[in-house]
Amino acid sequence: MSSDSISFDVFRGVSGKIVADRVTKSLGDNEIFIETTHSGLCGTDLHFLHSNKVLGHEGVGIVRRLGPGVTSVKVGDRVGFGYTRKVCGKCKHCLSGWDQFCENIADFTNRADPDIGSLSNGAVWDADAVVRVPNGYDSSDAAPLLCAGATVWTVLTEYGIKPTDRVGILGIGGLGHLAIKLASALGCHVVVLSSSESKRQEAFEFGAKEYFVLKSGEKPSGLLPLDHLLVCGSSSSMDYTFLVSLMEIHGSIYPLTVSSDKVPILLHDAVLKGVRVQGSLTSSRRSLRRLFEFVAERDIHPTLQKFPMSVEGIETAAKVLDSGKMRYRGVLCWN
Amino acid sequence: MSSDSISFDVFRGVSGKIVADRVTKSLGDNEIFIETTHSGLCGTDLHFLHSNKVLGHEGVGIVRRLGPGVTSVKVGDRVGFGYTRKVCGKCKHCLSGWDQFCENIADFTNRADPDIGSLSNGAVWDADAVVRVPNGYDSSDAAPLLCAGATVWTVLTEYGIKPTDRVGILGIGGLGHLAIKLASALGCHVVVLSSSESKRQEAFEFGAKEYFVLKSGEKPSGLLPLDHLLVCGSSSSMDYTFLVSLMEIHGSIYPLTVSSDKVPILLHDAVLKGVRVQGSLTSSRRSLRRLFEFVAERDIHPTLQKFPMSVEGIETAAKVLDSGKMRYRGVLCWN
Repeated sequence: MSSDSISFDVFRGVSGKIVADRVTKSLGDNEIFIETTHSGLCGTDLHFLHSNKVLGHEGVGIVRRLGPGVTSVKVGDRVGFGYTRKVCGKCKHCLSGWDQFCENIADFTNRADPDIGSLSNGAVWDADAVVRVPNGYDSSDAAPLLCAGATVWTVLTEYGIKPTDRVGILGIGGLGHLAIKLASALGCHVVVLSSSESKRQEAFEFGAKEYFVLKSGEKPSGLLPLDHLLVCGSSSSMDYTFLVSLMEIHGSIYPLTVSSDKVPILLHDAVLKGVRVQGSLTSSRRSLRRLFEFVAERDIHPTLQKFPMSVEGIETAAKVLDSGKMRYRGVLCWN
Repeated sequence: MSSDSISFDVFRGVSGKIVADRVTKSLGDNEIFIETTHSGLCGTDLHFLHSNKVLGHEGVGIVRRLGPGVTSVKVGDRVGFGYTRKVCGKCKHCLSGWDQFCENIADFTNRADPDIGSLSNGAVWDADAVVRVPNGYDSSDAAPLLCAGATVWTVLTEYGIKPTDRVGILGIGGLGHLAIKLASALGCHVVVLSSSESKRQEAFEFGAKEYFVLKSGEKPSGLLPLDHLLVCGSSSSMDYTFLVSLMEIHGSIYPLTVSSDKVPILLHDAVLKGVRVQGSLTSSRRSLRRLFEFVAERDIHPTLQKFPMSVEGIETAAKVLDSGKMRYRGVLCWN
């Protein structure tokens, strides 16, 4: 082991369980070592419980060491690190500000490296792929913004949603509750669609103006057409033909959760209403920086449940998440 | 029969056949009588062969009589009349310039009135729902613009397609051949996808820059990603998951033909590429007027096969269309 190598603790998904392990890495060009302090737990992490990979893609920590050539951050900086591990900065997508679609680096997401992730006490990351957390903004609040917040923020700010629009949020979990808070802060008229009454009060506290309980295939009485609809629940169980029926002329539906099932859509109805179905994928660094500025300036915070960063803490959080009882994002903390 | 009543010949779809009939109507407020001279034949007409309705929604003719209060056209004007029979001009969609989605008049399309259509020698229409044909532009060329041309024009001009974009046209029929001509005239790099080699030469003459033969589910070698894809063939037989694989990041797919089948889409792939599926419905009057100005100014014309406006002529045209041999739009003509 060279004197430049760094060892740190990680938590992997192995055979459906959380397993502690220790990783040793050295710092390559423009890489930094981040001491992880907090990590959000995303539903997607639960898909990787058999991957042997280090879990977590909503990390916040402190920069402790710099590899060769690093100029964009310094030791002691508090940074967020999430989906994007490294980007080229040169391809047409990076140059367009959409580096979540970087085409030069095949393994630009953290999924490609089995030894890095934010469920850890450390990670090696490209210095240009992290985002600085604003002074005074809590690290535990920052963590869920790296994936859940970034995903809804991209939709809310990049696809033409206007403050005068009626914005539907379907499903109130990690993504959905942040979508309500952010859309409301952006001035939109937020309409929440939920499968139960249980979150009505909180939805209004988050900024919703209307709340409807959706029963399978039934259009709630009194629900006026929506200009936009963020599908924050499981997309495989959604009836998109029904969702089209909820939309205003030229309305847009954004499927935000990823399923590997094919979803049947009656294009006939979508065509007759000029409806669009718009895919959107997490966030670029550009968009994520703007999100951090926005939440700091407007004093917007995720609603969290905290758990200790340990095998037991992660397993407990995963159980709460899996049972649908998380209110609304689980964050693992070292202290 | 009052002295104000007007009688005219029409062709209905009855029990799968074309049947000649005669209709008598009087002119209501702001209505005009148009002597039909030409009508395009659209694939959609073939869906109404059992409807008892007068067929045709790509009409051109001469205004012969004015009802009470008409000020927007005069006797002798040459006008096009198509999908929209009447609009309110006051609802939010009309006021936004999207009167094809008028919400105040339930029967605003010509489908709602069984006694009007452009396969006829006359029709009664709202004076504000017609569009003037530019001087010098041939009536037979104008007819297919009312539906086929309008449909592709709306997509090409209203949803952010830029002259620098790679625009795919899938299926070269009535819509597709006009899409090639119009997209090319708008400066786009047009890529044609066809099921056979047979239209390659003509596609290039229409303005295409590339031509690929699509074999079921197979990505043609050498085909670079598309920014936009107009699906001008039958949407029910399209594999949308395959189509997503042809798209550039943030590409848009426009299903332009209407099927009543549900189409399975793998949203997972659409999300990962930020692809949108955008419904679009024919054209507003605003957009149609601009199309007429554009084709007249740029000397753009549909490629036609002409047939006599008669039971035999319509039946022959329908057979040619149904067999896939129309090159590229059939137009029925009285003279």
